[in-house]
Parts: sequence; structure tokens; C-alpha cells
Amino acid sequence: MQLYHHPFCAHSRLVRLALSEMGIEPELIEERVWERRADFLMLDPAGATPVLVEDDGFVVPGIDPITEYLDETRGSALGARRLMPVHIGERVEVRRLSSWFNHKFYAEVSEPLVREKVYKRYTPRELGGGPPDMAIIRAARANIRYHLQYIGWLLKARNWLAGDRMTYADLAAAAHISSVDYLGDVPWEEDEGAKIWYARIKSRPAFRPLLALTMAGMPPAPCYADLDF
Amino acid sequence: MQLYHHPFCAHSRLVRLALSEMGIEPELIEERVWERRADFLMLDPAGATPVLVEDDGFVVPGIDPITEYLDETRGSALGARRLMPVHIGERVEVRRLSSWFNHKFYAEVSEPLVREKVYKRYTPRELGGGPPDMAIIRAARANIRYHLQYIGWLLKARNWLAGDRMTYADLAAAAHISSVDYLGDVPWEEDEGAKIWYARIKSRPAFRPLLALTMAGMPPAPCYADLDF
Repeated sequence: MQLYHHPFCAHSRLVRLALSEMGIEPELIEERVWERRADFLMLDPAGATPVLVEDDGFVVPGIDPITEYLDETRGSALGARRLMPVHIGERVEVRRLSSWFNHKFYAEVSEPLVREKVYKRYTPRELGGGPPDMAIIRAARANIRYHLQYIGWLLKARNWLAGDRMTYADLAAAAHISSVDYLGDVPWEEDEGAKIWYARIKSRPAFRPLLALTMAGMPPAPCYADLDF
Repeated sequence: MQLYHHPFCAHSRLVRLALSEMGIEPELIEERVWERRADFLMLDPAGATPVLVEDDGFVVPGIDPITEYLDETRGSALGARRLMPVHIGERVEVRRLSSWFNHKFYAEVSEPLVREKVYKRYTPRELGGGPPDMAIIRAARANIRYHLQYIGWLLKARNWLAGDRMTYADLAAAAHISSVDYLGDVPWEEDEGAKIWYARIKSRPAFRPLLALTMAGMPPAPCYADLDF
């Protein structure tokens, strides 16, 4: 299996975590989507990571199609470790929280921070590159606080974000938070419950490859790979 | 069943179309999400329409959870008219295109146009209301052209957007386009194939309630309800 990804694309991180939890090691192909490579646009006309390609060439593009597809094709083999529960009520809750992180947290926190701090540095000025917009960064840093509080609030009554077991909801939240944590923009003092939950998920073997990431010229924040942050 | 919706929320329009195709008539409750009503935030902490509430009080919030939930609970009864196909390859394509319209078209076209032209008019100035930003409107009007071309391109080889049958992909595209069409911002001369497809879906009985919509002080564009536009 091949995965077109980018180290700072939180949706790609989520797919890497999910594949790892499923015991699948994909061939990783780093895609700089802003280059709009013609061959990549053939795979996915939307031109966005992640894109999964099966051995037989079958293409699955985009975070929601990929997570549903992986569950439909590999989920039942995971038994109690399945990332999408079987019960209809739990499925709604996993999808609600996955949407929360993949779309709402993305729009309010991870997309603006990664765009301003990472992508704009590697993009030519005529394509929108340049120095980060500090007003956008400040807004995203303010927004992340209520997301951490919400995570902490959920965990007051639950083991994991969507219920008793770890699901796609936890992986989605952790993937987005980890891309922001690399940049040093997670105020861990904000919520103790959220911090304990992240420490737990961060220590899973599936997380190790993400913690080993470093980008040339842009080292991770000191807390990023520290399991005892 | 109750549906918390807003007439200009394209995701709400998609759920209304889907329910109608399923023969379900929900009680419609108009929600002005910018008022951030406490009781509504209890139903959906994300505070966004649409939110579906079953007779027994079970709450399903958000467009992706709702479409998957409706298919899982009512899909098989629809037989050949099911909005989510059963074959895994077709499911990926329906979800890819649903994501395209619910997230990409939304971000590039329908959300900015509706925000600038409708929501900002009804929002107090201190909460972000005011006159529309014409630069944003011009960008969205430019963006919609390539989406119409993409629809036309897909339909060169297919009956409906995702294949031989009408699916969630068509309803998603039509829902988003209809909210923009009300405002008169769909350049129908751009792509003949897209226009023919929209005329076909617009003439379905499920579409009628949407075409009957009018907002006080803001009548629809002349082409909006015209089946022969």
C-alpha cells in the first residue's frame, strides 16, 4: 500500500496512526501539494493529501473516504481494537468527534498554524509564500485553548474521547494536536485531563514514527517527542 | 424526526433532499447558529446546522455523521434508490465527491458567498456583521467556474456524478449549488453538461420545497425556481 502524505498534514498523520494501529506499514511518498504535480492530480483531482493507493492500484483520496474505507476493509479483523465501533450510537459519536477535529479543529487551529508557520516558508512568494501573519497565529493559539478544554471535559466521563475504547476520534484529535505540538503551540497547562490523555496516546507504538519526524531547518519544540512533557 | 436547519445552510439542504428521497418528512426548526442558543449548543457543542433528532431523542449532529447514519439506518430499505452504494469502490467515489462538495466547494464557493451576502446582513456589527466584502465574493464567483467544469467533465462518462445512479454525491453538489443559485451566482453558461444535470435533479419532487423558499427582503434570483432556466 502507498500513502501520499506530508509530515505536517494532520490528516496524513491520522492515516499513518490508523494504519499503524492496524499493523499495516505503507510505503510513504511525501507530496508537496502546493507544487500541484500533474501525476498527483491524476490520483486526486482535489490535489490534497492524504491519498492511499492499494497494491492493485485502487485509489482512495481524502481523510473521510480513507478512514471509512480502512474500517470497511480491515476493521472487523481488529476485533475489540476496531477504530470504528459497530453500535450505531457509538458510530455517530466517533464520526461527530472525527469531524470536529478533521474539519473544525483543522479550520480553527491546525490548518492556519501549519500554513502560516510551515507551508508559507516553502512556497514561492508569487504563490502566496512569505512571512507568517501573526494575527492569524494569535487567533489559532487562542482557539486551541477551548479545544483542549473540550477534550478535558469529555474525558471527565470517559476513558477515551468517544467512549470506553480508543477510536478514530482519539487518533484524529492526537494527529491534529501533534502537528501543532511540533510547532510548540499547544498550551499544555490549559487542561490537565487533555494532557494526561495525550501522554497516553503519545506513548503508543503507533505514535513513534511521528515523534521521530524532524524537518530540516525547523526542529520540533522540545516537548514534541518527550513522553514526559 | 426533527431537523435543525437554516434555509441557506447547504448542508441542511442536503439533509432535506436526502430525507425527502427517503420519503421522510421531518419537523423543520430554523436555527440561527450565530445566536449561539444555549439549548442548541446542548444538542451540538459545535453549534452548527444541520442537527437531526430522532423521535426517541437520539441526536445526530453534522453533515457527515448524518448522511452515514441515515444510510446505515434507512439505506437498505431504499433498494436501487439507495444514496450510498453497497460496492466498496463506489462507496469511495460517493464519499470522495460528497467531501468535495461538502468541504471543498463549501470552503471555496458556498460558505463565503452565503456568509458575505446573507449571514453578515443579519449579524450585529459587533459580531462580524456588515456589508459584504466584494473581494471575497469575486474570488468565490471565479472558483465556482472550475467546479461547474469538473461536474461537466464527470458527466461526460457518467449518468450521475458518481456513476450510473443518483447518490449522495449528486445531492451534495445540488444542495451547495442551489444555495448559491438563490443568490444568482451560478454562471450557467459555463458548462452545458452541468446545467443539464442540474435541470434533471432540480425537477425531482424532493427539490420542490427548496425551490419554494424565499427570504424576506431577499428574493431569489429569477432563475432559482425556474425549471427551464
